[in-house]
This record gives sequence, structure tokens and C-alpha cells, in this order.
Amino acid sequence: MSMQTVSVNRSHGGTQGVYRHASLQTNTDMTFSVYVPAHREGTKLPVVTYLSGLTCTHANVTEKGEFRSACAELGLIFVAPDTSPRGEGVPGDPANAYDFGLGAGFYVDATQAPFDRNYRMWSYVTDELPKLVADHFPVDPNRQSIMGHSMGGHGALTVALRHPARYRAASAFAPIVAPSFVPWGIKALGGYLGNNKDAWRKHDTVALIEDGAKFAEFLVDCGDADQFLTGQLKPELLQAACEKAAIPLTLRRQSGYDHSYYFISTFMADHLRWHAQRLKA
Amino acid sequence: MSMQTVSVNRSHGGTQGVYRHASLQTNTDMTFSVYVPAHREGTKLPVVTYLSGLTCTHANVTEKGEFRSACAELGLIFVAPDTSPRGEGVPGDPANAYDFGLGAGFYVDATQAPFDRNYRMWSYVTDELPKLVADHFPVDPNRQSIMGHSMGGHGALTVALRHPARYRAASAFAPIVAPSFVPWGIKALGGYLGNNKDAWRKHDTVALIEDGAKFAEFLVDCGDADQFLTGQLKPELLQAACEKAAIPLTLRRQSGYDHSYYFISTFMADHLRWHAQRLKA
Repeated sequence: MSMQTVSVNRSHGGTQGVYRHASLQTNTDMTFSVYVPAHREGTKLPVVTYLSGLTCTHANVTEKGEFRSACAELGLIFVAPDTSPRGEGVPGDPANAYDFGLGAGFYVDATQAPFDRNYRMWSYVTDELPKLVADHFPVDPNRQSIMGHSMGGHGALTVALRHPARYRAASAFAPIVAPSFVPWGIKALGGYLGNNKDAWRKHDTVALIEDGAKFAEFLVDCGDADQFLTGQLKPELLQAACEKAAIPLTLRRQSGYDHSYYFISTFMADHLRWHAQRLKA
Repeated sequence: MSMQTVSVNRSHGGTQGVYRHASLQTNTDMTFSVYVPAHREGTKLPVVTYLSGLTCTHANVTEKGEFRSACAELGLIFVAPDTSPRGEGVPGDPANAYDFGLGAGFYVDATQAPFDRNYRMWSYVTDELPKLVADHFPVDPNRQSIMGHSMGGHGALTVALRHPARYRAASAFAPIVAPSFVPWGIKALGGYLGNNKDAWRKHDTVALIEDGAKFAEFLVDCGDADQFLTGQLKPELLQAACEKAAIPLTLRRQSGYDHSYYFISTFMADHLRWHAQRLKA
């Protein structure tokens, strides 16, 4: 699989790149970023994939995530994909809705027309992108982990629960944990997957846990000043599901923090250290 | 002096705010950001002012500068003003030039019409803004320092040389050190100050040093992959001037780094530690 380099900048001793490739999953060009820390020639490094939230592209976390210093220190590659297909002919104009369509792929493979042709973000982030990254960067495929924010926290937790052997760690900032029960999720899962709610359960963290999916442990931070906490995020539902299923969950309610990158960047290094411990164990 | 709060976000244990006020210097509204780390009630903290480069507003460093973690650790307030007046009736459309007018105030008080009514960034950053900040934030006016990038590095060094008693430290990323001799500077100083080059010398770091201005010491980082290094920045002229005047200069040429915030953010914490040592001495 081939890709083009959009930009490369030296940062924190390593290389922050932005790349573009023609995706066979989404039938569009897709843009993503990869940070590779300084490393000995020939070494394979652990890789953390970060899934972003509604309205974001790869650029938000790349510019505002403050992950490079910790990745440089810990020797982690950091991969940040886009949140949806984009380009001419892709349905889902964000002028109509910030929470559906462009910038809001919700990490599912759509089954509903007209979205099923391009909106295949599940297969993109779990299959096509990891292979592309492994082809082009010095990653150790046996040491992968995943994290995300909000819609991307939903993505990270569902991906981890459905690939527990592949990902050694999973964490989230302000994740949507029960999309079947909150407005953002109902709109997205209904629009992409249709009205049969059985199909939604594979893309709902709480439902996956109720249905028996397992993962070693989760780390989740939520800000108690997050405007979406009670209406869209509902971390208490994750806490209840994890308790019932005996999945260890560290859920931290961070006082005064909101839903922004000012929150994410505060705890990013802490999450990466937690990932590194598990990736290097 | 009154100001309005545009936004406030908890970050790295402190408060990242953006504020707006009606400036008497620029005759416009001016927007700036202030980060205040967690601190004991009643404590006065040292304050670092960061001057930004061409095309920037307060937002670039606020989002991409990666200064909050170090400021939280070191107990520093961080102030980031805009780079020019803006608003209806302010001359200098950036559609005409990115390097003159809006986003390119060059930290001088313009004497040439039509710019003299609004382009008073020297008085703004050395007088009006510090007073406003001291009125509204817990700063210790005896512990101030200044830093900047590119055009803002020029600003920081010239401000320090003309106020050596006020600023306990001064550093720069990729500063324009001899504006009288490079295209960006010739255009800006000529446009704002007119053709009499005597008036330029007070706004030219190398000329100020040649004319006898002193400062305790400078820290300057330049990337050796900076596209503006040889044509606009010319750090070797600063080195020569400092050597001749016996002003201690730590000039580091950082291998592989360019002119972007990927460069600045890499060395930001290092600069802030250097400032903190001098602010707390």
C-alpha cells in the first residue's frame, strides 16, 4: 500500500509526519498523522493509536494533544487518523449536522445507503490503517494500544473489547460509553446501521460488556465540568457494567475540567505512561 | 482598566483564559491569553510574556506552545498578546501581505500615516498590557521576563534591551535580530517608522547592542532547517554583536528543526526552566 507525505516536522527529537493515501475501505483519500520518536536504527517500537472526537481531523490532537514529549521519553509511536471519509461525493455535509457525516464517522462500517459506500471507519481503523502503518513505520505489531476522546473514546473502547488480544492497553478521555442510549449515539448508529438495534450492540461499549466481551483493564478520565457529561457520556454506565463483569476500570473524575483539548493535554502524558507500562510489560 | 473574559478552561491544574479589552494605545479591542497555574491564595507569581511571530494571534502559542505543563510545575504566569491591532478600519489587510499590517505589528509604535493611529504595539506590550495584567492577575511585577518567536523574538530582545531593569530574563526562538538588514524588517520598519533609518535603530537588536544597550544574558534557539535562517534571521549577527559587547549569549543551533510550533514546543519547557531560574534567583 502506498502513501504520500503531506508534511514532516522535527519535534521533540523525533518526526511528526502527516500522510495521505487512497483508502480501499472508504473509497476516498484519507489523511492521518504519525509521530515517530528518535530510536536506534532497526528497532521496532510500540504504537499507540488515538481516535479523535466529533468535528475533529487528525490535526486537532496533532497540534493540541501535547503527546510528543511523553512519546519521545517513552519511545512510543503515535498514530492519529481522521474521524470520517471526506472528499467530493462523500455524503454527510457538516453544514447540516456536526454530529453525523463528515467529521462524525463513529468508527462503524455503515450498512445504510448512501453512507455504506464510504463510511467504513471500523474496518479502516482496525484493519487498513494498522497494515499501512506497519508497512511504512518501525512498529512492533505485538505491542499496540489504543486510546481516544469522546466519539474516539467510544471507538477505542469498542475496538479494544473486540480485539482484546491485539491491544495491550486501552484508555479514553470523556468517552461515549453507551451510544445506544444517548442522542449522539442514537443519531449516528441509527443513521449508519439502521433501526435494528441488535446491530448497534457491537458498537456500544456497555452492551459489548453485557454481552460478554472482556478486556484486561481500562483507564478513563472525565472532567466534572464537561458539558456533555450527563447527557452524552454517562461514565457511571461504564462503571456499573465493568463492576458487574469484573473488568478493572480506573475512572477518574477530574475536578474543573471540560471537554476540550485543554483537558486532554493535561492528562495525555499520564495516559501514555500507563500505556507504556503495559506495552513494555 | 476593565476587560472581558472570552473563555476560561482548566488546564494542567491551572486556568487558561482568553480576554479582551478596549486598548487606549491601539484604539481597538485587543485579545490576549493568560495562563495562571495553581497557587496558594494571595501569592504573587512571576510572569513570562511571550510575543508571537508574523501571521499569529494569541491563539497559536496558546494552543500549540506546550507551555502549560512547565508553567504549572514552575509556578509561572504566561501572557500571550496578539501581534497587531485588528478590527474595522484598521489598515493593513493581510490579503495584501502576510508580513505587514494585520498580524505583523512588529512591536513598534508607528509614526507613519495611516498606521500611526492603531499600530502602537511597542507601547501596548511594554506599558498598557503589563498594567492591565497586573490589575487582574496575581503577578509579582518585580519578577517579569520576556520571550518570543521570530518577529516576536525581535520584540522580546528589543524590549529586554530597552528595559533591562524590568525583565530578569529574555530568550527567543528563531528571532529576527537585525531587521534593518533583512526583507521582513526593512518592509516593516520602513512602513511603520518611515525612511529615516536612525529611527529604526531602537527597534533593531543588533543596532541597540552596537549603540550600547545591555542585558544580563540571552538564550536563543534556532533550527538549522529553518527556511528563514539565512535570509531573515541571521543569528550570526547577534552572536557577533553580543561577543563585541560582552553580553553572554547561549545560541543553540538545533539540528533538523524548522520555523514551526513543532520546533518551539520542543524547547519551550527548557526556556521556561531557564526563565524560572532567573525569576526566582
